[in-house]
Amino acid sequence: MRWRSQNVSILCLLVWLSLGLEAQSSWVPKVRSWITANEQPVMRELQELLAIPNVASDRANVRKNAEHLRTLFTKRGFSVELLETPGNPLVYAELRTPGASRTLLIYSHYDGQPVDPKGWQQPDPFTPLLRDGRLYARSASDDKSPIIMTLAAVDALKAAGEAPSSNIRVILDGEEEAGSPSLVPAIAKYRDKLSADLMVILDGPQHSSGRPTIAYGARGIARVDITVFGPKVGVHSGNYGNWIANPAQRLALLLASMKNEDGRILVAGWTDGIAPLSPEEKAMAAAVPDDAAGMLRAFGVAAPEIAYPRLQEALQYPTLNVRGMASSFVGAGARTIIPDSATASIDVRLVKETRAEAMIEKIRAHVRKQGYHIVEGVPDDATRAKYPKIARLATFGDGTDAFRTSPLDPQAKALAAAIRQATGVEPVHLRTLGGTVPISPFIQALGFPAVLVPTVNFDNNQHEENENLKLTNLWEGILTVAAILRM
Amino acid sequence: MRWRSQNVSILCLLVWLSLGLEAQSSWVPKVRSWITANEQPVMRELQELLAIPNVASDRANVRKNAEHLRTLFTKRGFSVELLETPGNPLVYAELRTPGASRTLLIYSHYDGQPVDPKGWQQPDPFTPLLRDGRLYARSASDDKSPIIMTLAAVDALKAAGEAPSSNIRVILDGEEEAGSPSLVPAIAKYRDKLSADLMVILDGPQHSSGRPTIAYGARGIARVDITVFGPKVGVHSGNYGNWIANPAQRLALLLASMKNEDGRILVAGWTDGIAPLSPEEKAMAAAVPDDAAGMLRAFGVAAPEIAYPRLQEALQYPTLNVRGMASSFVGAGARTIIPDSATASIDVRLVKETRAEAMIEKIRAHVRKQGYHIVEGVPDDATRAKYPKIARLATFGDGTDAFRTSPLDPQAKALAAAIRQATGVEPVHLRTLGGTVPISPFIQALGFPAVLVPTVNFDNNQHEENENLKLTNLWEGILTVAAILRM
Repeated sequence: MRWRSQNVSILCLLVWLSLGLEAQSSWVPKVRSWITANEQPVMRELQELLAIPNVASDRANVRKNAEHLRTLFTKRGFSVELLETPGNPLVYAELRTPGASRTLLIYSHYDGQPVDPKGWQQPDPFTPLLRDGRLYARSASDDKSPIIMTLAAVDALKAAGEAPSSNIRVILDGEEEAGSPSLVPAIAKYRDKLSADLMVILDGPQHSSGRPTIAYGARGIARVDITVFGPKVGVHSGNYGNWIANPAQRLALLLASMKNEDGRILVAGWTDGIAPLSPEEKAMAAAVPDDAAGMLRAFGVAAPEIAYPRLQEALQYPTLNVRGMASSFVGAGARTIIPDSATASIDVRLVKETRAEAMIEKIRAHVRKQGYHIVEGVPDDATRAKYPKIARLATFGDGTDAFRTSPLDPQAKALAAAIRQATGVEPVHLRTLGGTVPISPFIQALGFPAVLVPTVNFDNNQHEENENLKLTNLWEGILTVAAILRM
Repeated sequence: MRWRSQNVSILCLLVWLSLGLEAQSSWVPKVRSWITANEQPVMRELQELLAIPNVASDRANVRKNAEHLRTLFTKRGFSVELLETPGNPLVYAELRTPGASRTLLIYSHYDGQPVDPKGWQQPDPFTPLLRDGRLYARSASDDKSPIIMTLAAVDALKAAGEAPSSNIRVILDGEEEAGSPSLVPAIAKYRDKLSADLMVILDGPQHSSGRPTIAYGARGIARVDITVFGPKVGVHSGNYGNWIANPAQRLALLLASMKNEDGRILVAGWTDGIAPLSPEEKAMAAAVPDDAAGMLRAFGVAAPEIAYPRLQEALQYPTLNVRGMASSFVGAGARTIIPDSATASIDVRLVKETRAEAMIEKIRAHVRKQGYHIVEGVPDDATRAKYPKIARLATFGDGTDAFRTSPLDPQAKALAAAIRQATGVEPVHLRTLGGTVPISPFIQALGFPAVLVPTVNFDNNQHEENENLKLTNLWEGILTVAAILRM
């Protein structure tokens, strides 16, 4: 029964996904022709933007970027403002469409990761280099090219005699690589400018299949270091071994109590509030063309976690990941002691139903349930004398909550349909990204739906040396953004 | 029934322990007087010996020590030889006693730990400093003063008109702090010189009660680092969290499978061959005047391991101690990844029944039983593709086996009785030390009983800065060694 209803659901989803694959809009060939004819000026515009250094802490150059962007958007008829913040300015550009009943807020960021030229195969990461169909420069993919795609899409539509079908608002962040500290505070001051029916985040890499990609959410993150205390100072493992308890062993037992051999998390209430995936959601996950075997081979791993054999389903649930562990020394320099403490650094990837603070609280309750007295700082003598098991939980900031928009949201559906119709390809639908985007709190504070439309190649060396953009992604990206403008 | 027989046994032991407490030998008052009268020359002799630097790697100065010792022993009528080795020489001194039916081999070492003068409260650790009844210098306690005690004991007995009751052989190690690499190889060449009925090791600190101490054994040690492998390189904890297994979590589960919350070791066969302590042995352990509460307070620990609430009983069993752990980073520098590997460094303190190699093999079998494929080095791609769980075990040398002499051995009993009679104090009897002595393999290779008679103060800062000897320990030590010579 269950099997039958699930299969019917998958069928419905596939029907829904393929709706409209046939009907390509009439402006598409014109936009494609424009792109082919205008590769040189688009490239020039991108290269000029990339030539302005954009490390968030380099405030003078970041402002030059903002001024340059003001010019570029003004040229297309946007009304532009630099929204000042305590940090770098937000570039705000608006293009009103008479009679439009929908407002889109397009988000990209114009700052980039720090650079260390040593690792680059070109003298200067801010002097773009074209090689083998890719443009190499800092921010070539993350995230200046989506800005150029937006500008070119406006130009291309105009040349095709088309205008956007929505009011377009563009917000360009100058501090994304620094965690976007100014976005949420800006809402209080600029809420009227920032309101819309759908936020479209043009950032991040496409699915590795190279198909157009829509991500309807991103997991959040919370971080906590758990330290188990042993003797005040490391004591001789011979003189006291078997008698003084070992904090590294206790930490191992504590971690083992939190997650089992299958990768199943045992902390009470860990998945509270998360409904099992519906047949539609399962079908959506199953439709993602992940090359699981290839990924496992690349990572050198024989098999995934038993609890979550499918990647896309694994990403729908919160994690409990030991990202680091430390206690005294290992290797040739190890000392024969019972260490004074042992620490595990944990990150928890959150989903929409599991908020950062609540998850840290569940971990705290779990640690208590294992018999630990929890301290702040370092336990004093009286505490040490009273409690046989002592631990500390140190969090790093408040964490970042997840966001997730329903793929059945009318605006999200319209966007998906527009991309499908324009490109002639069924987009890859990701119910959520596994990672975390700093824009999450901004999305939640604004309170309207948001989707990510990543357009750059997955192998773009984002954040690393030799960051690059595949030019085919640039050209397809212009079409994708045009579709969004025309949705 | 059991209770009654145990109490009878304890009674027997106490009777045995107190036998002869009344009968003090006639030479004792004379030796005590000699000591009082000769504090100055004994101190001078010790200070002269301490003034010769003795770090094992400083071979020129170490040889000066050996030559100086040759002179000191020759002066007392010993026939002395420097036994050459590939490393530093062993100083061998023999004093034959006509008609003696017993031969004692007295072991001390004349090398010392490296020094860093910065931490010392005196300009030069090799210029002894007398302060508050203690002599501060490198090797003041570890282990030059027992050599001076031996020389002074011979002088004192001679002045009292007494000769040793045994043939006395003295072997002085010049590489103890470097692990005594030359001792076992020396046996093949010098076996006739090194044979005896009992080895008496004059090294290490007395029990903290300050009572004369006899240790009948010492635990051994084996070391192994266990590394659990994850993905080839650390992978993004968001993109792959819940799907790619975490090696730090797996290591925690592995360690948790090896030892439980109570401190009980779960590795199969861990205590095979170890008979439960007999009532006599339990009584012996119970008679050790450990200040458990004081130690726990000093260490800042509320309670000992549940499996081994009594220190002296805890030391009778092999340990499994996580001396260090490492995986990626913790704290503010932690990265949000699933790490590529996680390592626990383990030391196993051995008892006589559990040999180093066999215990490592038991750990290896345990790891296999948990589903791990064990590799040498780093797993290659084919291995990674084949085995879901991969671990490496790296040992550090062959380990050092334990030694233990029965307190009921006739020679050991005679030694205990002699010390008891001379000092008028019941010695502290330690069935085994918790720690490991590098002389263990030498004892086993020689094959005759051995006991440790530590004579220096427990708070001597051994191996550290400001190493010191309490002068009262020097004077009582001379009497103790005289008792051994007269046993």
